[in-house]
Amino acid sequence: MDYSKESLKKHYEWQGKIEVVSRVEVNTREDLSLCYTPGVAQPCKEIQKDVKKSFELTRRKNLVAVVTDGTAVLGLGDIGAEAGMPVMEGKCALFKAFADVDAFPICIKSKDTDEIVRTIQLISGSFGGINLEDISAPRCFEIERKLKEVCDIPVFHDDQHGTAIVLVAALINSAKVANKQLKDMKIVINGAGSAGIAIAKMVLNVGVKDIVMCDKFGILYRGNSQMNDAQKEMAQITNINNIKGTLADAMKNADVFIGVSAPNVVDSKMIQSMNEKPIVFPMANPVPEIMPDIAKEAGAYIVGTGRSDFANQINNVLAFPGIFKGALTAKATEINEQMKMAAAKAIAEYIPPNQLSTENIMPSVLDKGVALSVAKAVKEAAEKTGVARI
Amino acid sequence: MDYSKESLKKHYEWQGKIEVVSRVEVNTREDLSLCYTPGVAQPCKEIQKDVKKSFELTRRKNLVAVVTDGTAVLGLGDIGAEAGMPVMEGKCALFKAFADVDAFPICIKSKDTDEIVRTIQLISGSFGGINLEDISAPRCFEIERKLKEVCDIPVFHDDQHGTAIVLVAALINSAKVANKQLKDMKIVINGAGSAGIAIAKMVLNVGVKDIVMCDKFGILYRGNSQMNDAQKEMAQITNINNIKGTLADAMKNADVFIGVSAPNVVDSKMIQSMNEKPIVFPMANPVPEIMPDIAKEAGAYIVGTGRSDFANQINNVLAFPGIFKGALTAKATEINEQMKMAAAKAIAEYIPPNQLSTENIMPSVLDKGVALSVAKAVKEAAEKTGVARI
Repeated sequence: MDYSKESLKKHYEWQGKIEVVSRVEVNTREDLSLCYTPGVAQPCKEIQKDVKKSFELTRRKNLVAVVTDGTAVLGLGDIGAEAGMPVMEGKCALFKAFADVDAFPICIKSKDTDEIVRTIQLISGSFGGINLEDISAPRCFEIERKLKEVCDIPVFHDDQHGTAIVLVAALINSAKVANKQLKDMKIVINGAGSAGIAIAKMVLNVGVKDIVMCDKFGILYRGNSQMNDAQKEMAQITNINNIKGTLADAMKNADVFIGVSAPNVVDSKMIQSMNEKPIVFPMANPVPEIMPDIAKEAGAYIVGTGRSDFANQINNVLAFPGIFKGALTAKATEINEQMKMAAAKAIAEYIPPNQLSTENIMPSVLDKGVALSVAKAVKEAAEKTGVARI
Repeated sequence: MDYSKESLKKHYEWQGKIEVVSRVEVNTREDLSLCYTPGVAQPCKEIQKDVKKSFELTRRKNLVAVVTDGTAVLGLGDIGAEAGMPVMEGKCALFKAFADVDAFPICIKSKDTDEIVRTIQLISGSFGGINLEDISAPRCFEIERKLKEVCDIPVFHDDQHGTAIVLVAALINSAKVANKQLKDMKIVINGAGSAGIAIAKMVLNVGVKDIVMCDKFGILYRGNSQMNDAQKEMAQITNINNIKGTLADAMKNADVFIGVSAPNVVDSKMIQSMNEKPIVFPMANPVPEIMPDIAKEAGAYIVGTGRSDFANQINNVLAFPGIFKGALTAKATEINEQMKMAAAKAIAEYIPPNQLSTENIMPSVLDKGVALSVAKAVKEAAEKTGVARI
């Protein structure tokens, strides 16, 4: 179904998908004196004495900024700051629906990384967390890295880490169903952009040793002159045998294929060349690297995509609401690797072992219990790793 | 009554005075496809083609940023960005309660005027208007001026213009009750800071010819070496007779006293030295320049203050919600002088002539009908002056 026309009509009707409402009554003079002047001076003074109190006395305790510069919006590319706002508002609606997190959309009318960093840093005192969204690579790496240095609240680029978390969850459960060990797997990741690189790093952290990354030019290997800086870095920590060649070469004897690249770049032969019980996650959206039914016919054992019309939907919405809820509840200063890993495991473990199957490796994206489980695990990881303010 | 303790307790209970909620349902896969991917691409494309569509397809149509740098919060001074947030949230709650305007609080962690301007400019695409709040003078003048140059949405420093608007409304009705003509009045304004200067400019615009401004050092006159740049400018357009001396000197034969200065700087003798039917607006808060009962005893004909425990409360809340509602409804590119004047007149005219009296020159701050009247008048003024986007 084509949702374009209906969605546009709905957007005119909605008049915005988020709304700012008041949590206080303002009907009497006493109301005014308590929520505004003169009473409001006292909470102000408390925060002046100890800025941490702002996490209790203002809404930042439950508030995330969803920030874009409009340079990589969906598959539409660089469409301008304001034009990215319907996506940001949608994301905010999901934050609220799935984790009761207040999220507020901000677009920044600049493409200069330093200026974007400085702008977000300067407004960060208004929020409890920063969700970066739809910012083009490689700019998004620098923006996130610099922001993490200067902000005392979590900064999380969902296109990288949210995607990595749900894929690792899918990988963990697929390994269980296929009865394979992560440490023995060979994994091919096609698409060495922001998402692919974040996935590779997290997959390494979960114990996988043999990862081969590919991009348009083929395999990333040490000495490949076609790689950008981020890819050079990845070639140092992946591709243990430093193999060269095409995606088809990489996929021979691989246990897992992860695609965050382009439609239809994988064919049946490539699936057939993989190790036994091939696990295939073609995530390109809306048209995946290989259609699930074709992959299955070619012998894929487990297939998961970003699409809602096939089994095993692997979607960020399983991760980000609960991750931020957990980080906010802990008043965390950052979202670290342990918190991300806790989120991935919580998503995976949400499905009871006896319900796992090749057609059921991921919880439903509509199951609002997932975010609760993720939040709990993330909060505990924050406390354990000393980044909670409690 | 001292509201400090009770207000602090309430602030802990409230856990923030504003909340971001969703205006859409997210329960089914179809919901997700309409409010988020893939449907959301279409409204994005519409805004990419014509950025004005963002005022229809996103919440900016009804959304104001309430922005501070925390340098002049209430009477507390420079308490830091985060510490100003309870006031900003309170203001946002009033926006919602009185005009159903969504308002979102932002604090900026910088005191550099250029950096503040640039930050607000870069995030302005997320909003339909910018309400500046509690920014210290003279920085606030420069910030507002520069922002108006670079933003295509209304920028309004409420401490200046909101205050000026409600005082002009009070002045208009007081003149009616005292049966005096504005053009014949001599008006003394004590406190030549941001509010005082904005009041003086607007009072000139309403037809008053004889204004004398004072500050701590006494009367502002051409050649006075104690004045700052903003005050020098005011000395050029006020004080037609270029008189010198103290506040007491200024007040002799004055028709109106407006104080935006400090507690208890006016005494009974000064009131007695004024013209017949003295009109006295001692606005210092919470302790005015002279207490209303003392002013009355000394012969004041009409007294209005910022306080809720005396007659004639003159409070910005009568102005800003309706002004922004009107500007937003018109999709205005700015809030110009005509729109401010329309607001002042709408507030004044809200009281039927037969109900005007020395004890009733201002509508109740709790009367939510005022904002509606103001919004209507402001929208019409925007359309008339060509700043509406409709």
